[in-house]
Amino acid sequence: MKVGNISYRTIWLAADGRKVEIIDQTRLPHEFEIVTLSDLNDAVYAIKEMQVRGAPLIGATAAYGFCLSLAGGSDDSQLVNIGNVLKKCRPTAVNLRWAVDRMYHYLVKIPTEQRLDAAYAEAARICEEDVLANENLGRHGMELIQAIWEEKGRKSPVNILTHCNAGWLATVDWGTALAPVFKATEAGIPVHVWVDETRPRNQGASLTAWELSSYGIAHHLICDNSGGHLMQHGQVDMCIVGTDRTTASGDVCNKIGTYLKALAAKDNDIPFYVALPGATIDWTMDDGLKDIPIEERIADEVTWIQGKTATGSIERVCIVTEDTPAANPAFDVTPSRLVTGLITERGVCAASREGLTRLYPEQGQL
Amino acid sequence: MKVGNISYRTIWLAADGRKVEIIDQTRLPHEFEIVTLSDLNDAVYAIKEMQVRGAPLIGATAAYGFCLSLAGGSDDSQLVNIGNVLKKCRPTAVNLRWAVDRMYHYLVKIPTEQRLDAAYAEAARICEEDVLANENLGRHGMELIQAIWEEKGRKSPVNILTHCNAGWLATVDWGTALAPVFKATEAGIPVHVWVDETRPRNQGASLTAWELSSYGIAHHLICDNSGGHLMQHGQVDMCIVGTDRTTASGDVCNKIGTYLKALAAKDNDIPFYVALPGATIDWTMDDGLKDIPIEERIADEVTWIQGKTATGSIERVCIVTEDTPAANPAFDVTPSRLVTGLITERGVCAASREGLTRLYPEQGQL
Repeated sequence: MKVGNISYRTIWLAADGRKVEIIDQTRLPHEFEIVTLSDLNDAVYAIKEMQVRGAPLIGATAAYGFCLSLAGGSDDSQLVNIGNVLKKCRPTAVNLRWAVDRMYHYLVKIPTEQRLDAAYAEAARICEEDVLANENLGRHGMELIQAIWEEKGRKSPVNILTHCNAGWLATVDWGTALAPVFKATEAGIPVHVWVDETRPRNQGASLTAWELSSYGIAHHLICDNSGGHLMQHGQVDMCIVGTDRTTASGDVCNKIGTYLKALAAKDNDIPFYVALPGATIDWTMDDGLKDIPIEERIADEVTWIQGKTATGSIERVCIVTEDTPAANPAFDVTPSRLVTGLITERGVCAASREGLTRLYPEQGQL
Repeated sequence: MKVGNISYRTIWLAADGRKVEIIDQTRLPHEFEIVTLSDLNDAVYAIKEMQVRGAPLIGATAAYGFCLSLAGGSDDSQLVNIGNVLKKCRPTAVNLRWAVDRMYHYLVKIPTEQRLDAAYAEAARICEEDVLANENLGRHGMELIQAIWEEKGRKSPVNILTHCNAGWLATVDWGTALAPVFKATEAGIPVHVWVDETRPRNQGASLTAWELSSYGIAHHLICDNSGGHLMQHGQVDMCIVGTDRTTASGDVCNKIGTYLKALAAKDNDIPFYVALPGATIDWTMDDGLKDIPIEERIADEVTWIQGKTATGSIERVCIVTEDTPAANPAFDVTPSRLVTGLITERGVCAASREGLTRLYPEQGQL
């Protein structure tokens, strides 16, 4: 998407065709800074410290992490080692595991001396496929927005609530939850987005609001606490969120707090959609609540907040006394019964094994 | 309650017996500062800017605001004027209106020259009654905590989730939601409190965590997003929150986000209690969602956050780009169907007209 007049993706090859460049998302919205990844350590750091985040982008970065590490050797044991290091970076998003497994299974069949070039080609394919999938799911999601707009008699903007950032910054391009919003805007359908700030890391405030503002899409930042009240008062027409892992039965793991919004949507008869490319589905899991590992991140993310002071410097401030303990589960699971539908690159389906199998018959047979 | 070794209430008469002193709650937890209120303007400022907050304490401050303004004249029209100025300070908490009406109706029957002394006496009674009510509701709430502790075989602490601050800082003393927690602790029942940080103003982080820490009660700060996940995983035994206004039918208006926690509690079969002194009941209202005015506060409360830097200075930082619009509804309404029970100074009752009328028969007949 465009930043100023320049089109960006979130990850791309540097001029040397070997190093990889990313946007450092921990600096947004106050600074737009590009970081170069030169080796496996850089890729691991970028994923762990959330310079890149969002399930699809984590997958793409892991794929390029594979490429960056092959310069140091590319025999079979090296492939296994690289995969293990990358998989450990973050436990919840399934795209990380998916991308690593895909790179491994592809490369292990190729002669060692050809693996480096093959890895770059495969990582590029993963990126291209992500962009295409997101653009397609954006089109399917746009139809849902359009239907609501028609229902409202084309009279007022469609009010969409989203949680966290599942915009283009969470993917290689286009985004998941925001792809339908971008597509609707392109199609001339007026939308207004309620942006959950998404504590503790405020990806809604710092990334989603920034994306929407860059694109000229009407929005308001709200505290994570406000969505229920807005739904009770008819100010939300639909919710669209992303996901870090969706089980074969349609349970949705996403940024902490998603479950609360799904409950409120259900209580107020508001459609609650989850947008995802197929790579985010974990076909090996059924019960999201029992089986998906939930990353517990450091307490500092809750107790310290970064922002810009009135004099323009970037500062971190502590909102509690120093001895205050904090707990920081990073994700929660929304049971499929609360999800109106899954928006995928192949169309919209029910959040159920039947729904997913209809769209992905090749997986349902596994 | 004690701060260090000194016992404090949240509001008290200054040494001259006329001025009023309060704890400036906007400076906590980093600074404990006492502010003197000398006239009506000071009282209005303290309520509007939330140096004092919490429905019962707003009521007590309004009562003393009445006293402070009578020095300038105390005829009937003056009483009406003062009442109007105070009632406009904040729209949602019913205790403000209740205290103002009580002061007015009491004073208007008294000869003008005796009104000043009578006002101070009545304000003091309002404070004493609040302390007594909260201590009593604390005892009733403690029995609920004790019952859960027994159910757990006295083996592990009772995990209580609370939202915002309904501790002693929200009242004259003891608190509402936290009074049962303090009483349980006195009785030797082990408790652990999940403290919602409560965006946008972070009263959970800055006030509730501070109160619990001062009192040596185990607790963890969590983001407002986390409670649902903790409930899904059996880590919450009960919720107790306060309220700014409860309708005669048991609908509960409280800090924005309360409704989301009540939904999650219902979804996970976890008891959800609301603690309140009788003065917080609005007997004139039935439908909380339709009738309670919800205060919309300034966007800056969402976009700017105050805290302490690593070098020890208090700073405000902006978490978004300057052009980001924000919406800031301060309260929401939890329908009575989601409330397990109301903890009052007269006992625990169902959140319904029948339940409340049983405890307050003199009001039910109105």
